[in-house]
Amino acid sequence: MRKVTYGCAVSLDGYIAGPNGEVDWLMWCDEAAEVASGYWANVDAILMGRKTWEFAVSGGQGGESSSKIATYVFSRTLSETPGATPVSEDAVDFVRKLKSKEGREICLMGGGDIASALIGAGVVDEIGLNVHPVILGGGTPMFTASTRSTQLSLIESRSFSNGCVYSIYRT
Amino acid sequence: MRKVTYGCAVSLDGYIAGPNGEVDWLMWCDEAAEVASGYWANVDAILMGRKTWEFAVSGGQGGESSSKIATYVFSRTLSETPGATPVSEDAVDFVRKLKSKEGREICLMGGGDIASALIGAGVVDEIGLNVHPVILGGGTPMFTASTRSTQLSLIESRSFSNGCVYSIYRT
Repeated sequence: MRKVTYGCAVSLDGYIAGPNGEVDWLMWCDEAAEVASGYWANVDAILMGRKTWEFAVSGGQGGESSSKIATYVFSRTLSETPGATPVSEDAVDFVRKLKSKEGREICLMGGGDIASALIGAGVVDEIGLNVHPVILGGGTPMFTASTRSTQLSLIESRSFSNGCVYSIYRT
Repeated sequence: MRKVTYGCAVSLDGYIAGPNGEVDWLMWCDEAAEVASGYWANVDAILMGRKTWEFAVSGGQGGESSSKIATYVFSRTLSETPGATPVSEDAVDFVRKLKSKEGREICLMGGGDIASALIGAGVVDEIGLNVHPVILGGGTPMFTASTRSTQLSLIESRSFSNGCVYSIYRT
């Protein structure tokens, strides 16, 4: 069964983007780059919701993904997602089937609504947060209020030299 | 100038109590006890809002605080808070004055509204979180959406054997 991980850079108050979509608070460092490089080497599929897809495309991040990684975009309205596969069926059903197929790790990019549904259905195996040392005071939350109550276990936690705290949990 | 710290046990999704005020997810361990013991040895004043006070009293935690620690309860409606001092004046003004007086560290207990106002006004010096490995999916948030955007710097982060991640930030 393929592993599904939900990972985000997140502010201390739990937002993945500021009130106006700002991501200018994101910090990068060699340690984070090393973690990301090791992570992506094992991934061959990306899952995201429509809004995350549109945000990625608007930022030049979508549509050109590596041919080695399949990108799936959950949407009831989009029928064309260049470089990616639109998925109109139920996200939980789709992910259950995808997990049982041959392949490597699956990266769930969010956003919060789709992540909440998938965490609630028990199809997400690991959650990773790179907590940035900033309070945003509003924006797009990593977890929505509808996320089902879930007990986790800590796999690893370490702090980076730039003040980020990176933690991985098993659901 | 006395140091004001805002510290909480918090779920991974940022709540200090569940949707119905649940705190049964809180975990304790020797490492947390050691941190708490070292912390409280330096504190001689506690600040809290009315709701936190009422919650503390209902749980048998208030009204009997050590005579070595002064408890201040911000409220425009309460005139009697047995074992504590009610404060009806502006919280920010009060804390500025209290910080300039002789004394040891000041513990801000919350809740989120009063903490947001005090963080926004720049009178909170350190923020500590003991992040528990659980998603609650709703409840009382540690930070409210009105918390002003604030850059922090990480002082320390460590994980406990029970899976909690304890981090302290300078504002």
